[in-house]
Amino acid sequence: MTEPTPAIVLPDEVSVVNLGLSLFADAVRDQGAPAQQVDWRIPADGQADLVDLLEQLDGPRAAAIDEANAEVVRRLDQSVALLVDVAPAQTLLRDLPERTLLHCGPEIAWSDVCDPLRRSMRAATVAEGWAESVEEADPILADGSIRLEPSYRYDTVMPMASAIGPSAPVFAVDNRDGGTRAFAPVNQGPGETAWFGRETPAAISRLELLRDVAGPMLRHILDSTGPIDIFSLAAQGVQIGDDVHMRTQGTTNLLIRNLLPQIAALPDDGRGEFAAYLSGNHLFFLNLAMAAAKTTALWAEQVEGSSIVTMMCRNGTTYGIRLAGSTELFVAASPPVAEAMYYPDYGPETSAPDIGDSAILELVGLGGAAAAGSPAVAGFLPGGMADAVTMTERMASICVAESTRFKLPTWNDRGTPVGVDVRRVVELDATPKITTGILHASSGVGQVGAGVATAPIECFRAALRSLGAGSSSR
Amino acid sequence: MTEPTPAIVLPDEVSVVNLGLSLFADAVRDQGAPAQQVDWRIPADGQADLVDLLEQLDGPRAAAIDEANAEVVRRLDQSVALLVDVAPAQTLLRDLPERTLLHCGPEIAWSDVCDPLRRSMRAATVAEGWAESVEEADPILADGSIRLEPSYRYDTVMPMASAIGPSAPVFAVDNRDGGTRAFAPVNQGPGETAWFGRETPAAISRLELLRDVAGPMLRHILDSTGPIDIFSLAAQGVQIGDDVHMRTQGTTNLLIRNLLPQIAALPDDGRGEFAAYLSGNHLFFLNLAMAAAKTTALWAEQVEGSSIVTMMCRNGTTYGIRLAGSTELFVAASPPVAEAMYYPDYGPETSAPDIGDSAILELVGLGGAAAAGSPAVAGFLPGGMADAVTMTERMASICVAESTRFKLPTWNDRGTPVGVDVRRVVELDATPKITTGILHASSGVGQVGAGVATAPIECFRAALRSLGAGSSSR
Repeated sequence: MTEPTPAIVLPDEVSVVNLGLSLFADAVRDQGAPAQQVDWRIPADGQADLVDLLEQLDGPRAAAIDEANAEVVRRLDQSVALLVDVAPAQTLLRDLPERTLLHCGPEIAWSDVCDPLRRSMRAATVAEGWAESVEEADPILADGSIRLEPSYRYDTVMPMASAIGPSAPVFAVDNRDGGTRAFAPVNQGPGETAWFGRETPAAISRLELLRDVAGPMLRHILDSTGPIDIFSLAAQGVQIGDDVHMRTQGTTNLLIRNLLPQIAALPDDGRGEFAAYLSGNHLFFLNLAMAAAKTTALWAEQVEGSSIVTMMCRNGTTYGIRLAGSTELFVAASPPVAEAMYYPDYGPETSAPDIGDSAILELVGLGGAAAAGSPAVAGFLPGGMADAVTMTERMASICVAESTRFKLPTWNDRGTPVGVDVRRVVELDATPKITTGILHASSGVGQVGAGVATAPIECFRAALRSLGAGSSSR
Repeated sequence: MTEPTPAIVLPDEVSVVNLGLSLFADAVRDQGAPAQQVDWRIPADGQADLVDLLEQLDGPRAAAIDEANAEVVRRLDQSVALLVDVAPAQTLLRDLPERTLLHCGPEIAWSDVCDPLRRSMRAATVAEGWAESVEEADPILADGSIRLEPSYRYDTVMPMASAIGPSAPVFAVDNRDGGTRAFAPVNQGPGETAWFGRETPAAISRLELLRDVAGPMLRHILDSTGPIDIFSLAAQGVQIGDDVHMRTQGTTNLLIRNLLPQIAALPDDGRGEFAAYLSGNHLFFLNLAMAAAKTTALWAEQVEGSSIVTMMCRNGTTYGIRLAGSTELFVAASPPVAEAMYYPDYGPETSAPDIGDSAILELVGLGGAAAAGSPAVAGFLPGGMADAVTMTERMASICVAESTRFKLPTWNDRGTPVGVDVRRVVELDATPKITTGILHASSGVGQVGAGVATAPIECFRAALRSLGAGSSSR
C-alpha cells in the first residue's frame, strides 16, 4: 500500500501586506481579499549620493544634529514675538540705502522679475515720488538707478508680490529672548493693491494711504497699547479656523476688537480713513504673523549645525530656503501653485508661479501646518477637511515636533507640526505645502485664485548636500 | 439499514443584531463575536396614552401636520431678520405698562423667583431710579408696586437672568416677509453684570451705561448703516466655531470690524466709553441672534396645526415651550445644567437651574444644533469634538430638516438640524440640548461655569397632548 500523495491544501484566507506600488494591493482587493498597503518609497527618490548622505546624517552625525535641532525647535515653538513699533522703513531698517526697493524672495535682476512683482515695483516707485507714472518707472528700474534688494537682507518679510520703498511703514517685531527684531510692511488689503501685482492709481493711492495715514495711526495705537503679543493672538486664531496664512480673518477681527478703545481715541484727522481701511482688510494680521515668524526664525538661526529649515521665500521666479546656523540661500525655480481654485475665467495657464515671503509661516506651525484646523483651507481642496488633515499630517511626517501653542481642535487638539527637517524632506521626497494666493501671470489684474503650493525639492537637496559637506558658511 | 441521525451542525459563525438593552450585545462581543447594537427603546418611555397619541399624530393626522410643519420649517430656515432700530423699551414695546420689569422665561411671582434673577431685578429697579439701593428694591418688588412681566408677552427675548426696565435700550429686529418684529436688550457683557445675577454697583452702572451711552451710540451707528442682516453674520459665525449661543465671539468680532467706520465716526461724547464697552464684550452678538431667532419664530407661529416647537424659555424656576400655531405655554420645572464645567470651587450643588430665553436659538439651527461645528462647545464636553457631533446628531434625530444657511464644515458641510418636532421628542424621549452659561444659585457671585442643559420632557409631553386634543387655543 502506498501512502497517498498529500493533497495541496490552499489556505482558506490570505492576508496581504504590500509595500510600495499600490497596484498589487489593489489587485488583491479587487478579488475581495483584504490587503494592507504600506506607502513605502525608495528613499530620496533613489539618488545614490543623497542616500549616502542621509546614512551619515541619520547615522554617525545624527546625535549632534538632533541636539541642535532640539534647541532650534524650542526657539521656533516658544519665542515670544512682540509688536513694538511701526515707522517708515528708512527709519527702522539699518543701513537701508537710498533709492532702494525691497522685494520678496531671493535676489533678482530686473530682467528676471515676474510680471506681478514688476507692477508692484512700478507702483512703489511712483508712490516714492521717483517717477510720475508707472510708464516712467520702467527705465529707472531697468537701468539700476533704483536699487533692488531682497527684503530678507534687512530681516524683513513681505507677502505675495510686495515691493516697498524707504517711506513705506513697517512693523518692528521683537523677540527679546533672542535679541532679534524683524520687520514687515503694513498689509495693503484685498482688491486693487500693489502686492497682488496691480499698478493702477488706486493701488498707488493705497501705498500713499499706508504711508500718510495707516502708519501714523498705528503708531498712535502702539504708543497707547504698548507691545502686542502676536503669537498669543495667532494661537486663538487657529482655534477659530484661521491657518494664519491663507486665512487670517478671525485673528484680524480679534485684534481689531482688542484695539477698539485705541482706535476710538485716534485723532480726528485720519481716524475715519484708517477705520475704513481696517474695516475692509480681513488680511491685516497676515503681515504681523509673518514678522513674528521672522523674528522667531532669526533666533532659531543662531543655532549651529541644525537640519531645520528656517526660511522659505519666493519672488515669483526663484525659490530660496535656508537652514538654521547657515547664511547660505539654496535656490530653485519657483513652482506653480498646483492645487488651486481659480476665479471664473482664470486657470493655471494664466497664473504666476508661487510668490512671497509668507512661507515663513509654515516653518513655525502655521499655514499648511495648520490646515487640519481650517475649513477655509479645506474649501480649496477637493476632499475638504479630510484633505486638510492629510496636508497637516504630511507636514508632521517631515517635522520633528508639535507646536505647544498652536493646537487644532479638529485634529484631536494636537499641536501643529513644527521644525521642518531637511533630512526627512529629502528622504521622503516630500516638501512643505504652502497655503497661498495666486496672481495673474501677465495681465495686471491681480489675484486670480488661491490654493496650495508645494515647495521645490531641489533647494532642499542642495541644503542637505551643504549640511553634509559641513560647508564653510556654517 | 437505518439512516444515521443527522448530526447537529453548529454554525461556524453567528451574526447578532441586538435591539434595546446593550447588555446582550456586550456579552456576545465579550466572546469575540460581532454584534450590531440597535439603540432602540420603547417609544415615549412606554406611556400608553402618549403611544396612542403618536399613533394618531403619525398616522391619520400625519399628512396635515407634516404639511403645516413644512411651512413652519421653511420660515424658520429662510427668514431674513434685519436689525432696524435700537431705542428704550418704553419707546419700542407697545403697551408696556409703567413701573414694569420684563424678565426672561415664563410668568412668575416674586416669591418664586430664583436668586440670580432676583438680584438682576433689584439692579434694574435701582437703575430705573425706583429705589436708592438694592435693599430698598426688595419690598417694592415683593408688594407688587413694581409689576413683573414675562418678556415673551412683548415679543422680547432676554438671555440668562436678564431683567430690564422701561428705560433700557432694546434692539428691534424685523422679519419683513412675516411682518413680525422682535426685541432683545443690548448685551450687558461678561463679568460683574446683572444678567449673570449680580447686583453690585458695577452691575448697576453697566445698566446705566447701556441706557446712557451704548443705546444712543448704537442708534447713531444704525442711522448710518441702515438695516443689518443678522443671520447672514451668524452663518459666517458657524463657519468659524461659533455655535452662536454659548460662543458668539467670532460673529461679534466680525460685526465690529464691519461697523468700524461707523464707530470711528461716532460723536466724541460717548465714543470712547462705547468702544471700551464693545471691546470688552465678546458676547455682544448673542442678543442680536436671539432677537433674530424670535422674529423668525413669530413668523413660524402664524402657521396652524404644526408639531414644531417655536419657543423654549426659562426663568430659573420654570421652563416653558410653545408650538407653532398655539398661544399656549407648556411649563415644567427648570432643570439643572447637567453636563457642565465649573470655575474652580464651584459645582452642581451651588448652581442655579437653567435660565434665560436664549434657548430660542436652538430652534432655528444654532446653539446645541450647531455644536458639531464648535470647538468651544466641545471644550465643555468630556469627549470633545466627538461629543459635540453626537449632540448635533441627537438634535437631528428630533428635527425635520437641515438648515440651508447654517452649514458646519466639521460635519461634512451639512446644515444644522432645524424644526424640533414634538412628536419625535416624545417618541424618542429625547429633548433638545441647550448650550448655556451657569449662574450661582445663591451667593450673587454671577457666572460659575457653562455647559449643556437638557430640556425637561414634561412640557413636550404636555404640548403633544394638547396637539392631540386639538385644544381650543389653537
